[in-house]
Amino acid sequence: MNFVHSAKVEDLKARVSAFMEAHVIPAEADYHRFVDSGKDRWAIPPVMEELKARARAEGLWNLWCPYPEHGAGLNNCDYAPLAEIMGRSIIGPEVFNCNAPDTGNMEVLIKYGTEAQKAKWLTPLLAGEIRSAFCMTEPAVASSDATNVEASILRDGDHYVINGRKWWATGAPDPRCRILIVMGKSDPAAERHRQQSMILVPFDTPGVTLVRPLNVFGADDAPHGHAEILFDNVRVPAENLLLGEGRGFEIAQGRLGPGRIHHCMRLIGAAQRALELMCDRVSARRAFGKPLADQGVVRQQIALSLCEIEQARLLALAAADKMDRLGNKDARDLIGMAKVVIPQMAQTVIDRAIQVHGAAGVSQDTFLAAAFAYARTIRIADGPDEVHQDALARQMLKARAAA
Amino acid sequence: MNFVHSAKVEDLKARVSAFMEAHVIPAEADYHRFVDSGKDRWAIPPVMEELKARARAEGLWNLWCPYPEHGAGLNNCDYAPLAEIMGRSIIGPEVFNCNAPDTGNMEVLIKYGTEAQKAKWLTPLLAGEIRSAFCMTEPAVASSDATNVEASILRDGDHYVINGRKWWATGAPDPRCRILIVMGKSDPAAERHRQQSMILVPFDTPGVTLVRPLNVFGADDAPHGHAEILFDNVRVPAENLLLGEGRGFEIAQGRLGPGRIHHCMRLIGAAQRALELMCDRVSARRAFGKPLADQGVVRQQIALSLCEIEQARLLALAAADKMDRLGNKDARDLIGMAKVVIPQMAQTVIDRAIQVHGAAGVSQDTFLAAAFAYARTIRIADGPDEVHQDALARQMLKARAAA
Amino acid sequence: MNFVHSAKVEDLKARVSAFMEAHVIPAEADYHRFVDSGKDRWAIPPVMEELKARARAEGLWNLWCPYPEHGAGLNNCDYAPLAEIMGRSIIGPEVFNCNAPDTGNMEVLIKYGTEAQKAKWLTPLLAGEIRSAFCMTEPAVASSDATNVEASILRDGDHYVINGRKWWATGAPDPRCRILIVMGKSDPAAERHRQQSMILVPFDTPGVTLVRPLNVFGADDAPHGHAEILFDNVRVPAENLLLGEGRGFEIAQGRLGPGRIHHCMRLIGAAQRALELMCDRVSARRAFGKPLADQGVVRQQIALSLCEIEQARLLALAAADKMDRLGNKDARDLIGMAKVVIPQMAQTVIDRAIQVHGAAGVSQDTFLAAAFAYARTIRIADGPDEVHQDALARQMLKARAAA
Amino acid sequence: MNFVHSAKVEDLKARVSAFMEAHVIPAEADYHRFVDSGKDRWAIPPVMEELKARARAEGLWNLWCPYPEHGAGLNNCDYAPLAEIMGRSIIGPEVFNCNAPDTGNMEVLIKYGTEAQKAKWLTPLLAGEIRSAFCMTEPAVASSDATNVEASILRDGDHYVINGRKWWATGAPDPRCRILIVMGKSDPAAERHRQQSMILVPFDTPGVTLVRPLNVFGADDAPHGHAEILFDNVRVPAENLLLGEGRGFEIAQGRLGPGRIHHCMRLIGAAQRALELMCDRVSARRAFGKPLADQGVVRQQIALSLCEIEQARLLALAAADKMDRLGNKDARDLIGMAKVVIPQMAQTVIDRAIQVHGAAGVSQDTFLAAAFAYARTIRIADGPDEVHQDALARQMLKARAAA
Repeated sequence: MNFVHSAKVEDLKARVSAFMEAHVIPAEADYHRFVDSGKDRWAIPPVMEELKARARAEGLWNLWCPYPEHGAGLNNCDYAPLAEIMGRSIIGPEVFNCNAPDTGNMEVLIKYGTEAQKAKWLTPLLAGEIRSAFCMTEPAVASSDATNVEASILRDGDHYVINGRKWWATGAPDPRCRILIVMGKSDPAAERHRQQSMILVPFDTPGVTLVRPLNVFGADDAPHGHAEILFDNVRVPAENLLLGEGRGFEIAQGRLGPGRIHHCMRLIGAAQRALELMCDRVSARRAFGKPLADQGVVRQQIALSLCEIEQARLLALAAADKMDRLGNKDARDLIGMAKVVIPQMAQTVIDRAIQVHGAAGVSQDTFLAAAFAYARTIRIADGPDEVHQDALARQMLKARAAA
Repeated sequence: MNFVHSAKVEDLKARVSAFMEAHVIPAEADYHRFVDSGKDRWAIPPVMEELKARARAEGLWNLWCPYPEHGAGLNNCDYAPLAEIMGRSIIGPEVFNCNAPDTGNMEVLIKYGTEAQKAKWLTPLLAGEIRSAFCMTEPAVASSDATNVEASILRDGDHYVINGRKWWATGAPDPRCRILIVMGKSDPAAERHRQQSMILVPFDTPGVTLVRPLNVFGADDAPHGHAEILFDNVRVPAENLLLGEGRGFEIAQGRLGPGRIHHCMRLIGAAQRALELMCDRVSARRAFGKPLADQGVVRQQIALSLCEIEQARLLALAAADKMDRLGNKDARDLIGMAKVVIPQMAQTVIDRAIQVHGAAGVSQDTFLAAAFAYARTIRIADGPDEVHQDALARQMLKARAAA
Repeated sequence: MNFVHSAKVEDLKARVSAFMEAHVIPAEADYHRFVDSGKDRWAIPPVMEELKARARAEGLWNLWCPYPEHGAGLNNCDYAPLAEIMGRSIIGPEVFNCNAPDTGNMEVLIKYGTEAQKAKWLTPLLAGEIRSAFCMTEPAVASSDATNVEASILRDGDHYVINGRKWWATGAPDPRCRILIVMGKSDPAAERHRQQSMILVPFDTPGVTLVRPLNVFGADDAPHGHAEILFDNVRVPAENLLLGEGRGFEIAQGRLGPGRIHHCMRLIGAAQRALELMCDRVSARRAFGKPLADQGVVRQQIALSLCEIEQARLLALAAADKMDRLGNKDARDLIGMAKVVIPQMAQTVIDRAIQVHGAAGVSQDTFLAAAFAYARTIRIADGPDEVHQDALARQMLKARAAA
Repeated sequence: MNFVHSAKVEDLKARVSAFMEAHVIPAEADYHRFVDSGKDRWAIPPVMEELKARARAEGLWNLWCPYPEHGAGLNNCDYAPLAEIMGRSIIGPEVFNCNAPDTGNMEVLIKYGTEAQKAKWLTPLLAGEIRSAFCMTEPAVASSDATNVEASILRDGDHYVINGRKWWATGAPDPRCRILIVMGKSDPAAERHRQQSMILVPFDTPGVTLVRPLNVFGADDAPHGHAEILFDNVRVPAENLLLGEGRGFEIAQGRLGPGRIHHCMRLIGAAQRALELMCDRVSARRAFGKPLADQGVVRQQIALSLCEIEQARLLALAAADKMDRLGNKDARDLIGMAKVVIPQMAQTVIDRAIQVHGAAGVSQDTFLAAAFAYARTIRIADGPDEVHQDALARQMLKARAAA
C-alpha cells in the first residue's frame, strides 16, 4: 500500500496545475464575458481555441485516454489527480480535450467503433476539431432505469430509422457538435437488457431537430449547453450502428464506469477550489470587527470540508486503482460508492463556500454557482444517488447471504 | 392555546387558494414564455397586470398590510397562511401586491414616511402602479454586519449627496421601478448604530446607474431581477430623508422583522408545493417495474419533508403570534429561529423534490429550480443563517447567566 | 389561533416547575446513590415515596389523566407543558404518578376495564400504591409489526392459558409491580388485526418468570428496569380478559396514541434541560484562555438546539390540540410526526450537551447519559421511526391521489 | 499509488481474522457472563488469559509495536487492517496485547523510558502480565486544553510529590493494573507548554486512592473500567520521572498521535461488524410480510454505512502511511482528519445498526451498545472533535495565507 503518485504523475500534475493557474483561471472572465455580451450566446469564445492549441502544443492533451495509440496512455489512478486539477475550472477539462461527454463518446468509438467509424468521428474528436453529444435520457420516462428508453432504432433495408425525443444531450447546442450517439430500442421483444442499440447520427441528418436548450437552475451553460432533441424518421446507414443490435445496454455500461469516475474526479477539483476560495474570502472579509476567519463556525465548515474532500479523493483513487487492477466490472462497488458520495460532497462543500461569499456566492462573479449546478446535476446524471445506493446494498446483502 | 384559524381567515385562505389554482398557477407558463421568448427580457408580461387587476377587484389586495387604512388590516398570524399560499408560485405574491421588496418598502413609508413622501410614493405602490427597490447591500463589505455600509449620504445645503455602490437591489431592473430606498452613512463619527441614514432616491435622478443585472445560479430572475447600482454624486432634496439623520439602522430593524417572517411564510408555501409535486411525480413515474412511490427511500423523503414543513409552519405562526402580541422586538427570538430554520428547510425539501424529478427538476420545466434559488438566497439575505444563530445563542446564554 | 396557555395551565406549570426545582431535582443524587450503593439495586429509594406523598398532598397528582373522575381532567394540550416539566428529570414523572407504562396501563383500564378490573387494579395504580407492566414486545419477532406477536392467550374453560416470551416489559422488575397487561394471539385464524387479545395477569401467577433484567446501553435503569418475562402455561380467570377476544390490536392502538405523545412531551423537557445544562457548562468552563461559550461552534449548537426544541414543542402541542379536537384517530398524522421528530431531536440535542460536558457527559455525574438512553429507546419503542415515516408518506400519497 | 497490502500483511490479516472468528467472537458471551454473574465484577474472566496465551503462542502478539526488538515491527499502515480486525470485538485488542491504554503507555516507555523503567514496567506490560493506566484528564478543568492540567508533581529532594484528582483513567480498576503514568504541573511558572511533566506512579504507592469507577452510559466496562483517582501527597522516587521536567506536553503529543489512529482503526472494525450484523439481521427479520432487507430505507442505510466505512478506512490508511513516511508531526493533518471523521462515523453506523435491531440493539444481547459507547467516548477522548476541527482549519488558513 502506497499513497504517493509516481514521479511521472507528479510531473504531469505540476504541469497541468501550472497551466491552469497561468492560462485557464485567468481566461475564465474573458470566456464568460464573450458568451454573455455577445450577440450569440452559442458562439465559441476564441480564447478556448487558443487555450486548446497551447495545451496540445505542451503535450497536455487527451490525458484521459488510456490507449497509448490515441492519447496519454495513463491508467485511471494516474489520471485522477490530473482530472481533479482540470475540474477546478468549469472550462478546464475542454482545454485539455478531457471534457464530458466527448471523453465518453471517444471511449465508445475506441472500444466499440469500426475502423471507418473511427476514421470519420474519432480522429477529429481526438483532435478537438469537432464535438459530440450522447442521447440517452428521455423526457417521458425515468432514465434512472435505462431499460425504460422508448426511442426506436429500427432496421429498414440498409438503413436504420430513428424516432424519439431525447433531452439533456449535453454539448449538443455547441456549434462544433457534429455527431450524436443515440440509444434506442431495436427490438422491444428481446430480453430486457438486449432490446437496446446505440447508433451514430450525424447532427445534420434530416429529421434531427434541436428543440430547445435546457437550463440548469436558470443557466443555459452556453456555449455548450444541454439540448432537447427530436428524432423524426431519421435515417442513417446501417453501418452507423455501434457494436451490434441489442448491445446498447452493454455499451452504456462500458461507457458509464469511467464516465462516472471522471465526473467525480473533476468535482473533487471543483470542491477543492471552492474550499480555497472560502479560505481566502474569510481571511479577507470582516464583520463585527474581525475577519470571518475568526468565527469558529466558519472554521468548522472549513475543517469539515477538508475532511470530506480528502475522503472523497481517496475513494476516487481507490476506485480508479481497482478499475486498473481488476477491470470496471469488478470495481463497480467502489465506482458506485464514489458516485454516491462525491457529487453530494461537492454540493455540500460548494454550498458552504457560497454561504461565506454572501450574495456574491450565488452570482456570476465567482465560479461557485456554476460549480454548484454541476455537482447538483451529477447527483442525477448517470444514475441518481438512490439507484447506486440500492445497488450497493443489494450487492452487500447478497455477499453476506452467500458467505 | 388554539391551533385553528378564525372563520375570517379560513375564508380568505379559501379565496386566495382558489385564485391561485384558477388563475396564477395556470399563468406561470405564459409568464415565463413571454420573458424567455420576447426581445426584451425586462418587459412585464401582460398577464401579470391582468392578474393584479383581477385580484384587486376580488378584494385580495395588500393582504400583507396590517394598517386598515392602507390595506387588509390583518395581523401577522392571520396573514401567515395567506402568504404561504401566495408563495406556492414565484409570481404569486406580486399578483396580490404582496411581494418583496415592495411590501417592506411600503411598510417603511407607512411607519416612517412624511405625508408628502407617502402621497408621492406610497400611494402608487399600494396601487401596484410602480415598483421600488431597497439598496442596502454593498459588494465591497460584508453586509451581514449592517454597520459595514460604506455608501455616503451627506448633507449639502437643502440636499443630500449620495455616493456608493450597491448590489442585490431586487426589483430594480423592473421597468416599473421608480423609487429606491438607500441606506448609507451620514455621520461616520457617530455612535456605531447611529451613523446610518435612509433616503428616498427616485430612480431617474442623475448619477444613478443600473450597472448590471445579477444572476442567481445563472438565472436573471427577469423581469424583476437584481441589480448592481452605482450612485455617483446623486443629489436629492433633504426632505427625501426618512425619519431623520442617524436613524437608518433603526429603520432597517423595523423593516427587517416583518420582512424576514414574510419570506419564511412564502418559502413554506414553496416547500409545500414542492412536496406535492414530489408526491404526484413519484405516483406517476415508473422505474424498475413499479412507481417511484413504491420505493421506501422516496417515501421516507416525503415523510421527512412533511414533518419539516409542518414544524416550520408552526414556528412561523408562533413567531407571527408573538409579534402580534408583544411587538417585533420582543419576538426577535422566534423571528430569528424562523429565519434560521425555514429557508434551510425549504432548500432541503426542494432539493429532494428536484432529485425525484431527475433532470426535469433542475430545468425550466418545473418551478423547482427557481424555488430552490429563492430559498438559497434567503439563507443569505436579511442576515445569513450564522448571524441569526449566533444572536439566538447569545440571548439564551445571557438569559441563563441572569437567571 | 393562539399560542398562550390558559391561566389555569400557567398556574399548574408554575406549581409543577417549582416542585421540580425545590424537591425533585435536588433528590436525584440521593435517589441514584441509594440504588447504586445499596445491597439491592431493585429496592425503591425512600425519597421517592416521600416525593409522591408530597406531590399528592399538593394536588399535583395524576395530571396526565383526562378523566375528571380519576384525575386532573386536563386535555392533552393542557397536559403537554406539565409533562415537559416532569420530563426534566428521569425520576420526575413517577413523582406525580405520571410515568410510563403505568399511565398507559391506567388508561387501558379506564377505557376498556370492567368495574371489577378497575376496583382491583386501577384504584391502587391511581393511588401510586402498586406498579404495572405492559408485555407486548417479543424477542423472536419484529415488534414494529404488531401482528407478529406470537404469544398465545387461549381459552380453556373458565380460564385463559398464556404461553410466550416477552421482553422490554418496562417497570416489571420494580418490587411494587403487581399486574401485567399481556398481548397475545387468541385466534391465529382470524383476520390479521383480530387475532390478538389483551389480558390482565397478576405478576404472582404461577408460570410467570422474570427471566432477567435488560440493559439499555449497559444501564439497568434500576429500580424500575426492563424485564424479559417467560409465560409458561400461565392460567388466569376468563374475566381477566380486556374488552373481548380479538380486540387486542384495537386496545393497543387506543393505548399507543396518548402514550407516544406523552413520551414526546417528556423528551422535550429532557432536551430543554440538556440545553440549559449545556449553556451553564459552557459559561463556566474555560479552555484555551476563554469560556467555551466564546467558541462560535458551541453557540451554533446552542442555537440549533433552541430551534429544534421550540419546533418540537409546537409540534407536540399541535398534535395534542388535534387529539383534543378531533380524537386520536384523526390526529394520527400529527402524532406520527411528533413520534418521528421528537425522540430524534432529543437524542441530537442531548448528544450535543454530552459533547460540551466532555467525559462527565457520558458518566453518572449528570442526567445526560440516562436522558440520551431514554431518547434513543423511544426511537424504537411504540413503533420505530421508519414505520411511522412510512405511514405518514402513504397517507399523504393516498390523499394526493384522491384529490 | 497502490491500494494493495503486501503478502505479509495479507497473511497476518488472514491469521488474525481466523483467530477472531474461531476464538474471540465465540468467547464474548462467556466473558460477559463471567463479569455479570460473578460476585466480583472486577475479576478477570479466565477465558481472557487463555485467549492471550493462545494468541501469543501463535505469534499474534504485540502487533501494534513498530519496534522489532519489542514487538511485531510493523509500520502503521501495515498494522491498520490488523487493528481493524481486532476492533470487531470489545475484548479483541487485549487478546493480542494491543489494547489501549497499554499500547500508548508501552510506547511512552519505549520512546522515553530509562532502561530501569523499561525493565520494571515495560517488560511485564509487553508480556501481558500487568496492566497500566494513564492519568491525564481531571474533573475540575476542561481537558480539551491540556495546559489546563492542575495536578502537581513537585520535586522534594530525591522524590516527587504528586497531588491532584484525575478521572477517566481507563483500565485502572483492572485488578492487574500496577502502574500509572500521571501528568501534572511541575513548574506553573514555566512557558505554557513546559509546565507539565509525566511520572510513573506504582498503583500501590501510599496516597493513591481509587475513588470510584465511572460509568459510560450506565455501563461500568468491568473488569477494566474507568476510574476516578485521588493523589494525596503521593511520593515516588525522582527516577520515576519520564524524560525530564517540563516535557510532559511533549510526551503527550508523542503518545497521542499513534493512540488516536489506533482508536480509529479499531472503530472501523467495530463499525464494519455493526454493518455486517445489520445485514444479517435485516435478512433474517420479517415485518409486514417481508424481510426488513426488502425495505428500501434499510438498504439505503446499509449503502451509506458502506460508503462511510470505506472512506474512513482509506483515511486511516492514508494517515498511517503519512506517519510512516514523514513522521507523526507532519502527519498531524491526516491524523486530525481521521480523529474528526472516524469516531463520528462509527457512532452513526452503529446507531443505524441499533435501529434495525430494535430493542435488542440497545441491550446486552449484541455488541452494539458497547460499541456505540466506545465510539461516543472517543469523540471526546484525546481531544474532542471540535478542537481537532479547529486545528485543521487554522492550519489550512495559515497555509493559504502563506501561499
